[in-house]
Amino acid sequence: MEQVFLNELRDRFGIEYQNVDLLSEAFTQSSYVNEHPNLKLQDYQRIEFLGDAVMELTVSEYLYAKYPNYPEGKLTRLRAAIVCEDSFSAFARECHFDRYIKLGKGEEKNGARDRNSLLCDIFESFVGSLYLDQGKEAVQRFVAQVVFPKVEQGAFSYVMDHKTNLQEFLQKDGEVEISYPLVAEAGPANDAQFTVQVVARGEVLGQGTGHTKKAAEQAAAEVALRKLQD
Amino acid sequence: MEQVFLNELRDRFGIEYQNVDLLSEAFTQSSYVNEHPNLKLQDYQRIEFLGDAVMELTVSEYLYAKYPNYPEGKLTRLRAAIVCEDSFSAFARECHFDRYIKLGKGEEKNGARDRNSLLCDIFESFVGSLYLDQGKEAVQRFVAQVVFPKVEQGAFSYVMDHKTNLQEFLQKDGEVEISYPLVAEAGPANDAQFTVQVVARGEVLGQGTGHTKKAAEQAAAEVALRKLQD
Repeated sequence: MEQVFLNELRDRFGIEYQNVDLLSEAFTQSSYVNEHPNLKLQDYQRIEFLGDAVMELTVSEYLYAKYPNYPEGKLTRLRAAIVCEDSFSAFARECHFDRYIKLGKGEEKNGARDRNSLLCDIFESFVGSLYLDQGKEAVQRFVAQVVFPKVEQGAFSYVMDHKTNLQEFLQKDGEVEISYPLVAEAGPANDAQFTVQVVARGEVLGQGTGHTKKAAEQAAAEVALRKLQD
Repeated sequence: MEQVFLNELRDRFGIEYQNVDLLSEAFTQSSYVNEHPNLKLQDYQRIEFLGDAVMELTVSEYLYAKYPNYPEGKLTRLRAAIVCEDSFSAFARECHFDRYIKLGKGEEKNGARDRNSLLCDIFESFVGSLYLDQGKEAVQRFVAQVVFPKVEQGAFSYVMDHKTNLQEFLQKDGEVEISYPLVAEAGPANDAQFTVQVVARGEVLGQGTGHTKKAAEQAAAEVALRKLQD
C-alpha cells in the first residue's frame, strides 16, 4: 500500500495496520487482479462482504444507545439512510479513499474511480479490513470520527416523518389526539394548494401549505415541532 | 421471566442473564404491552432492531473464516439462506422460544405463537438481548450451538449453484474450460426436454436433462460434482 495513504490513516484517524496486506486487499478491484495474474491477488469482495455487516451492526448499536426513545421504525429508517450507497460513497471521498483504489486500466478509463457504487464498496471493505486487523473497538473509533458526527448534525434527519415526530413529542406526557383540519384550498384542480392547521389539546400549534393534503400536514407538523422545541 | 425458561437457557446453552429484564423485553410482543398499560412495558422491537444486525455480523464472520475459498457471491447466497425468516423461526422453535413469548389475548387466539414472522423476530430479539447483556462472544457461543452445526451438515447447501461449484472444484488446479454441449432435444416446443453433457479437459463428466437448457446444465453439473467428490 502507498506510504502516503498509511501516513494519512495514521495522522487523520490514528490507525496503524498490523497486517497491511488486508488493507491492500480491501482496495483492490477485480479489474486490477485480472490485469496482474502473476501477482495472485485477491479482490476486495470477500472483505466487503464482512465489512457490510460490520457497518450495519456498528451503526445499529450506536443508534440503539443514542436514541433510547426512538421506536424501532424510526431507528430502521435512520439506519437505512446512513447505511446506503449515497452516504458510504460520500464518506469514502471524505476519507480520500478514492485516491488509493487499485483499478485496471479499462476501469480507470471508464471513470470507475468516481463511481458511487465502487466507493461504497471500498468504504465497506476498508471497514471490514480494519475489523479483521484490529477488532470492533477500532471500527467504532473510526466510525465515531467519520459517520456519527454527521448523524448528530442532522444530516439524515430528512428521513424523519414530522407528523410521527410531533406525535412522539406530544405523547411523552400521555396520549394526545392530534388533528389536521383543512383551513384553505386554492388554485385549479391540477395545481391546488392546501393549507392545514395542526391542532392538539384544543390549541393550534402550526400551519402548513402544500400541493397535497399530506404535504401540507407534514409542513404544519414541522412548524409545530420547531416552535415546541425552541 | 419464567424460571423454567431461565433454567432451560442455563442447562441447554450455559446462558445466565445478568439483567433478566432485557430477556423479558425481548420476549414481549406489543399486544401484551397494550393489554397491560399499567406495567409500562417495552415491546421487543428495539432489541430486535439490534439483534438483526448482530446475527448478520455473527453469521458473516463465521462464513468468512470457515470458507476461505468461497467467492463473495457464494458467501452472500449462503448468508441470505441462513439469515431469513424460515431459518430463524425454525431455530426459535428448536430453542422452545415459542413457549415463552408474552402475547396479548387477541394475538394468542389468532395463532401468533406459531407464526414464522413472530418467531423470527423473537429469535433476533433474543440474540439482541444476549448481546446487550453479555457481548459478542456469548452470542457467538450460542450461535455456534444452534446455527453453525446446521450449516456444516449442509442444511443450506441447496442455495448453491452447481455449475459454479463445479467450476470452483475443477479450478482448484488452474483454469479449466467447461462446456455444456446439447446432445438431445425432445418433445413439443411448449414441453421440450433438453439433455446436455458437461465436458472439461476433453472428458464427459456427466449428463443432465431439464425443461430448459439452464436446468439441464445445472442437473449435469450436479451429477458431475457428485461423481468427482465420491
